[in-house]
Amino acid sequence: MNAPERLPLPDVQAGLDARNLPIDRVGIKRIRYPFVARSGGHAVHTIGTWSIGVALPPHVKGTHMSRFVELLESQREPLDIDALGELAARMLERLDATSGSIEVSFPYFVAKAAPVSGITSLLDYEVTWRVSVDRAAASARIKVVVPATSLCPCSRDISEYGAHNQRSHITIDAGVRGAISIEELASIAERSASCEVYGLLKRADEKYVTERAYDNAKFAEDLVRDVALELDREPRVTHYVVEAENFESIHNHSAFARIERVVGRSASDR
Amino acid sequence: MNAPERLPLPDVQAGLDARNLPIDRVGIKRIRYPFVARSGGHAVHTIGTWSIGVALPPHVKGTHMSRFVELLESQREPLDIDALGELAARMLERLDATSGSIEVSFPYFVAKAAPVSGITSLLDYEVTWRVSVDRAAASARIKVVVPATSLCPCSRDISEYGAHNQRSHITIDAGVRGAISIEELASIAERSASCEVYGLLKRADEKYVTERAYDNAKFAEDLVRDVALELDREPRVTHYVVEAENFESIHNHSAFARIERVVGRSASDR
Amino acid sequence: MNAPERLPLPDVQAGLDARNLPIDRVGIKRIRYPFVARSGGHAVHTIGTWSIGVALPPHVKGTHMSRFVELLESQREPLDIDALGELAARMLERLDATSGSIEVSFPYFVAKAAPVSGITSLLDYEVTWRVSVDRAAASARIKVVVPATSLCPCSRDISEYGAHNQRSHITIDAGVRGAISIEELASIAERSASCEVYGLLKRADEKYVTERAYDNAKFAEDLVRDVALELDREPRVTHYVVEAENFESIHNHSAFARIERVVGRSASDR
Amino acid sequence: MNAPERLPLPDVQAGLDARNLPIDRVGIKRIRYPFVARSGGHAVHTIGTWSIGVALPPHVKGTHMSRFVELLESQREPLDIDALGELAARMLERLDATSGSIEVSFPYFVAKAAPVSGITSLLDYEVTWRVSVDRAAASARIKVVVPATSLCPCSRDISEYGAHNQRSHITIDAGVRGAISIEELASIAERSASCEVYGLLKRADEKYVTERAYDNAKFAEDLVRDVALELDREPRVTHYVVEAENFESIHNHSAFARIERVVGRSASDR
Repeated sequence: MNAPERLPLPDVQAGLDARNLPIDRVGIKRIRYPFVARSGGHAVHTIGTWSIGVALPPHVKGTHMSRFVELLESQREPLDIDALGELAARMLERLDATSGSIEVSFPYFVAKAAPVSGITSLLDYEVTWRVSVDRAAASARIKVVVPATSLCPCSRDISEYGAHNQRSHITIDAGVRGAISIEELASIAERSASCEVYGLLKRADEKYVTERAYDNAKFAEDLVRDVALELDREPRVTHYVVEAENFESIHNHSAFARIERVVGRSASDR
Repeated sequence: MNAPERLPLPDVQAGLDARNLPIDRVGIKRIRYPFVARSGGHAVHTIGTWSIGVALPPHVKGTHMSRFVELLESQREPLDIDALGELAARMLERLDATSGSIEVSFPYFVAKAAPVSGITSLLDYEVTWRVSVDRAAASARIKVVVPATSLCPCSRDISEYGAHNQRSHITIDAGVRGAISIEELASIAERSASCEVYGLLKRADEKYVTERAYDNAKFAEDLVRDVALELDREPRVTHYVVEAENFESIHNHSAFARIERVVGRSASDR
Repeated sequence: MNAPERLPLPDVQAGLDARNLPIDRVGIKRIRYPFVARSGGHAVHTIGTWSIGVALPPHVKGTHMSRFVELLESQREPLDIDALGELAARMLERLDATSGSIEVSFPYFVAKAAPVSGITSLLDYEVTWRVSVDRAAASARIKVVVPATSLCPCSRDISEYGAHNQRSHITIDAGVRGAISIEELASIAERSASCEVYGLLKRADEKYVTERAYDNAKFAEDLVRDVALELDREPRVTHYVVEAENFESIHNHSAFARIERVVGRSASDR
Repeated sequence: MNAPERLPLPDVQAGLDARNLPIDRVGIKRIRYPFVARSGGHAVHTIGTWSIGVALPPHVKGTHMSRFVELLESQREPLDIDALGELAARMLERLDATSGSIEVSFPYFVAKAAPVSGITSLLDYEVTWRVSVDRAAASARIKVVVPATSLCPCSRDISEYGAHNQRSHITIDAGVRGAISIEELASIAERSASCEVYGLLKRADEKYVTERAYDNAKFAEDLVRDVALELDREPRVTHYVVEAENFESIHNHSAFARIERVVGRSASDR
């Protein structure tokens, strides 16, 4: 009795809509699908959490939601952000849409060598790729959340010994026009921190990172300024938001700083 | 031996910074502080998660983070969004800043009467108030996440009986220029849903909401269009983003639709 | 046509169930309801996230879910954990059940004075009260998650200067038989940490907490042992789990240690 | 000046501890490491969130945290739950410990065919494997969170048309003694639901799942009872907790039911 109808089922979504209101984005979100992320010469198995959508014209009642999942299902090759743009272009055709976007967030693992012992382990960055396309153009953004150590200059300078330090998240969210890798952006953030973090540290490494952070005290303000100075010199970045969030070891809240910037405009333009 | 220094401690943050980079926002975030939220004639005890920050000029090394917590601590009166703007103005003075913003997210409880039995219970909306101020002007946004029922028109029309339905979040994020209450925005969202949700329903109520949702099938696209039609007629709203997210009962992902709009511009302007 | 039926609606839940399987707990969860928490002589407005349920006998098809919300709605007086036990007893009567439990998690705010300046601010602990009742007996548990500073003894002892430190969560989850307050349990955790955390610290305070943490280095193992030593001497605690989790400033993961113990049994019994 | 010391650094953790308190578990948690999960004849690339720890004797001050990360780093072969037990046994040797446990949570993807069209897509289950070992024995648990559809029998029977339904999580957490796959446990949960969920459904499929759920109405109580009946007949399961949580489409909270059971004991023993 649950047998499917043999007559064609009505296509409710394809009906006309009388409200005459275009919709900016319609699609699916919070769907997890695995893929292989290509960046910096590496190919990393990972799991994406996807948000995929298109614009809907004023006269169309609804989109065809199943086609977004078909798009994911059809995609089994390794992806870099350029290939994601091509996937978005295929989406426009498949959905008969004039604009659309694909956003995927995923953990990306990099093998890092400890600073003294050289022992390697994996570190995870949380990455988001976002591509927006219309019939004429495409744009791409890369966001990388980089865990790092920050050590407070005030605490160090006012105290007889010690200094409070903590894990920080340095987030670079950059519009990009050329092939810039996750690794390159993460490296900019790590160079700007009091010290990088690692999965695996032996005692000699732990001595090194402790002393390096103390030698290299930074406020949240310093972290974002140092990242901004590097990004301002990067021709493949068109605009960016950089934020540092310090999960303060002496408070139950975070300190943060943020710089937003269109590259090429001087500070006095802002 | 841990006695505090009697000599003045150095004020590291007040030092000069040679990088000549202004910072858009610096402050604290993820700090929980209770307050009384005033809206629509009600005063509701709640707990805010706050993000508070100011702009920092290019030559100043750091802000004074403790003053943001002092600001919260100094604020014990009930707050509406206008009073939050006044708090932000005091922040500019206290931090000697030219611009800044305060954002607070909090659960807001409304007593609702069940549709048939009339029995009352509380329903929680997740609300965010955001005020941005500079020396010349102030602006305010209200975001309300409204839980509701959506029932799929396609499923209903193609099936012999039944229709898949699910909890949805209808989010209105509106720039406002007059006194519009949380209750009014939530009500716009609820009128646009297949049915409202309630904390407490007796059997006669359950029959009512079941049948009402079935009589009133809506796609995510319908939800945002119906909310948009109402907001377009609302003079106290200057611009808005409305999004509907359906936590699909037949999938492990969400369907969503979103309309963004500056009020007063017609659809053809967009 | 949506008018409620005047004839009695069938009570499906009250039907017989042929599977002959008792259900340990049935009820509602993830429901937010505000209340006033009483502890240590204070009354604190807060918002609970509740899980409420009863046992269901083998022959009954279903419980009456709306009665759990009625129970919350009926409860408007300030609550301590004893009053929560009384609420659970009323639940057994209302649901005609032989056993049940109520669990509520909530932020609890305590006014703390900074260690040198004496300036006060609020600090939030995440608390869970859990009461289980049957016709013969009742039991109660209190869980408090206490944010604190930990400073690594290894890092301090191997480094020329500095020491990595970070925010930690010290969690005490204790079966209690007398009136022990949230404040007392939090205080045990804070005394065992390298240093307490505060919402608001001025420079003299920051110097103090920096040096105190350095003077008072502790591994996660030390944190739980020092808490355990205090809890072992506490006659109002019948059993406990204490866990310390350090959000390591030099890694992107946590270190943890945990001791579980029925009080009164010596270490050699375990 | 940051060059590592050539003299041996002190091993602070290896010191003696005078408090004479054994520690139940000490180790690392919230660390993400990728691996290949083997189950039911499949090998699935995934990302684990790991919690790894050992017991610490009363006289030892601290464990060697870096060895847990070395353990993860050393493990590059595909893992099933038996291999995880072998990894735990190697951990005991490496850490010189008498007992320990490894817990890993990960999304596990299964290709499912839509019920009418037969189109395949991936569905993600959230899985946790937990192995506990000591010198004499080992035990293993598998937890699978299965998304499914539940449709309310009361709503169906009291309403003229329609019935509220929603996404549910059916969680089976089972002690296992033989090779039982993730797929087998997920399948038990899905057979007990009003209907399975799928990533990709065409219109004929949507009609099918809508009508099947309506034909197959279940309370949360029914879901757990039907799962329990199947698990009671499963010789590879030694004990279990089964929970159903319905994310109610007519409320802003969940309904839940839970059965805990040692297999082989009859209901009257409990």
